[in-house]
Amino acid sequence: MSVSDASASPAAHSPSSDAAADPASQLAAASAEYERLAAAGLSLDITRGKPSAAQLDLSDGLLSCVDGESFRAADGTDTRNYGGAAGLRELREIFAPLLQAPVDQLLAQGNSSLTLMKDALTFALLHGRPDSPAPWAAEAVRTGAPPRFLCPVPGYDRHFGLAEALGFELVPVSADAEGPDPEQVAALTAEDPSIKGIWLVPVHSNPTGVSISPARARTLLALETAAPDFTVMWDNAYALHHLREPHPEPVDVLALAAEAGRPDRVLTFASTSKITHAGAGVAFFAASPAMTDWFLTHTGAGSIGPDKVNQLRHARFFGSSEGVLAHMRRHAALLAPKFAAVDAVFSRVLGPEDLAAWTNPGGGYFITLAVSPGTASRVVKLAGEAGVKLTPAGATHPYGLDPDDAIIRVAPSMPPLEEVETAAEVVAACVRLATLEARASGV
Amino acid sequence: MSVSDASASPAAHSPSSDAAADPASQLAAASAEYERLAAAGLSLDITRGKPSAAQLDLSDGLLSCVDGESFRAADGTDTRNYGGAAGLRELREIFAPLLQAPVDQLLAQGNSSLTLMKDALTFALLHGRPDSPAPWAAEAVRTGAPPRFLCPVPGYDRHFGLAEALGFELVPVSADAEGPDPEQVAALTAEDPSIKGIWLVPVHSNPTGVSISPARARTLLALETAAPDFTVMWDNAYALHHLREPHPEPVDVLALAAEAGRPDRVLTFASTSKITHAGAGVAFFAASPAMTDWFLTHTGAGSIGPDKVNQLRHARFFGSSEGVLAHMRRHAALLAPKFAAVDAVFSRVLGPEDLAAWTNPGGGYFITLAVSPGTASRVVKLAGEAGVKLTPAGATHPYGLDPDDAIIRVAPSMPPLEEVETAAEVVAACVRLATLEARASGV
Repeated sequence: MSVSDASASPAAHSPSSDAAADPASQLAAASAEYERLAAAGLSLDITRGKPSAAQLDLSDGLLSCVDGESFRAADGTDTRNYGGAAGLRELREIFAPLLQAPVDQLLAQGNSSLTLMKDALTFALLHGRPDSPAPWAAEAVRTGAPPRFLCPVPGYDRHFGLAEALGFELVPVSADAEGPDPEQVAALTAEDPSIKGIWLVPVHSNPTGVSISPARARTLLALETAAPDFTVMWDNAYALHHLREPHPEPVDVLALAAEAGRPDRVLTFASTSKITHAGAGVAFFAASPAMTDWFLTHTGAGSIGPDKVNQLRHARFFGSSEGVLAHMRRHAALLAPKFAAVDAVFSRVLGPEDLAAWTNPGGGYFITLAVSPGTASRVVKLAGEAGVKLTPAGATHPYGLDPDDAIIRVAPSMPPLEEVETAAEVVAACVRLATLEARASGV
Repeated sequence: MSVSDASASPAAHSPSSDAAADPASQLAAASAEYERLAAAGLSLDITRGKPSAAQLDLSDGLLSCVDGESFRAADGTDTRNYGGAAGLRELREIFAPLLQAPVDQLLAQGNSSLTLMKDALTFALLHGRPDSPAPWAAEAVRTGAPPRFLCPVPGYDRHFGLAEALGFELVPVSADAEGPDPEQVAALTAEDPSIKGIWLVPVHSNPTGVSISPARARTLLALETAAPDFTVMWDNAYALHHLREPHPEPVDVLALAAEAGRPDRVLTFASTSKITHAGAGVAFFAASPAMTDWFLTHTGAGSIGPDKVNQLRHARFFGSSEGVLAHMRRHAALLAPKFAAVDAVFSRVLGPEDLAAWTNPGGGYFITLAVSPGTASRVVKLAGEAGVKLTPAGATHPYGLDPDDAIIRVAPSMPPLEEVETAAEVVAACVRLATLEARASGV
């Protein structure tokens, strides 16, 4: 996993007083500190990347910008009625430059990009892609081997869960500071036609915060793969979700794929879930012209168009691409202090003795905390018993199995700042205790 | 097909002056009348069951009943955030009695019941139902025979198109004034395990207006079928969409299925598309507890919950089940005159010479017009050339093929009343001309 060296920086504060004490005293002190925090009767939740109420408030203008006098789109369309499978053009025009997608290849759909990913994989399973020898599900029955999907680790549990639910076998691949390991991916895909694709969160990845480099993207797009229909699932969930400047330059993946001679390899997804209202936003799909047609054709069999009223709300609320960017700066102003607070607590408690490493990401919604191998489950259990709910250890890996039991995903976005600080104190105390326990037991 | 005798009633006006003339004069007069109407340069569309702007206006209160101060559900849930896979409980409580579904078995989802139907069939294809020997797609590959679906005709083109797109072979079955022919359905399903289900619009069916009788529903639910996972797709699209009183008593299909010992056979669907805003409504799914769990589990792999803000809008806007019923009476007041206008024109022009039969439905969105065999395509073509767009002839049948070329679906909801009258005049003139042409050519 990629935990930047810079983030595991020396503590801002001096080492705690027991740092130089004997191991038994250290363990006793850590245990006492844990008990002290656990006694506070906390009930905090840092499991999921949900926006806070203050972030949701930023978009409340959405709720009243379309009314009974203003439901018509710029072209006169009555957004209340059926139709418009591709989504409202004026909203697609706002997001096209932000997502590096030509507007005619950008679809605005329902409220969830995860649903669009499910749809795309389902279409490939049932119907095949245009470049598939057969529908993936039929191929699996004929060959007796399930389709397989590459899962860079640590990664997003819902990606892995979706692929598993759809019958894919999950194949972990490691990743570094530029993205998935190209040699592993090349070796796995070169001869196995059952490997149908790879998950990617290209910008501020969940949970590592890594953004893919253009060179790495180019490599993945150009790979010779045994499967002619190998698919890069480019989940651009955090494309605009920067915590500070400078931020990663966006990779124009559709252009890179075309340059690589494989325009149809990549399917891209994004949404406003972490831009406006998480449950009531708009999801986007973009791909090559051929794959956009493919997606729209299969979607069209089961839909008479997306919720255009909500799309009009979004277009009105933002007004322009620059409006979206200004809005994202307001999110950053709310989020950055929370990430900084976790970093400060971890640096103070865990830094001096190098008890863990953690990321200090430039964007996205997560901090990856790498603890001593074999202790992540214990940390999560201790934290839960102390009233701080963490994502289950292993959730960042296929099938929920982290072979090192070392990776914890921390999601500081939702609770108020002071609760985030408290939760970080508890987590740090748990890491300290679990680590010292493990050392004491000679593990 | 079922065209009630009552609807093909004698004309309110006296027969046209050429009714007693010789065939050549009649044809010349019909042709002249058609040319006169075609010369008006009309551009009318009665193809789809879309609500009119005036109907959509009825629900504009939706657009402003949730704002930045009122986004919390009754239980305190912040509807703006993720979560709540089953949908907002207070909305489900309003619709549960209207849809004869226990609230815990009723899901409120996205904006389209057609999408929920697509999802349910897709889950059966990819994963199988709990009572399936194998996923339907895998079974098809192994047996070499596609899964098959029964399609009562005339029926809803999007049902047929969806099933076809998903790889089902479409099998037409006839229907009468109580629903699908039970003997045909029994004969087809008794020995063929590839027949996986049947489409049904139980109330004010698209396009015939027939509502299924409780006895017929009981028969379908109790049938011994070769497929253990035979599924009744109960699309209750017009459950509340009555044009006059008295209206058909609702069939409590979930209770009937349980009584028949086959609680899992029926999956039910509905939406507010033709209640509030067609593109921005809420869709519902209801089934047995086991099938509701099955649907929710598979949906949950690809969703972090539906748009609860929009569901809250609907709950607030209606307030109660009675609020929905009162709202539907306002729709009826707008729709009934359009249906009456078509009936009056058809009665005047087509009735005296029995040139066609048509329905005068008690609800729903369609009039089925049965013309002389072999002339429906000609009527649609003539109408199109005269500026009145009709659904393509055959659309009411699987694969768009009406073997008799006799059925035309008329959708009078969307244009203003005076345009509906004009369109009906044109259609009637086209029917008259096409019928007399056919008689003249001895067909």
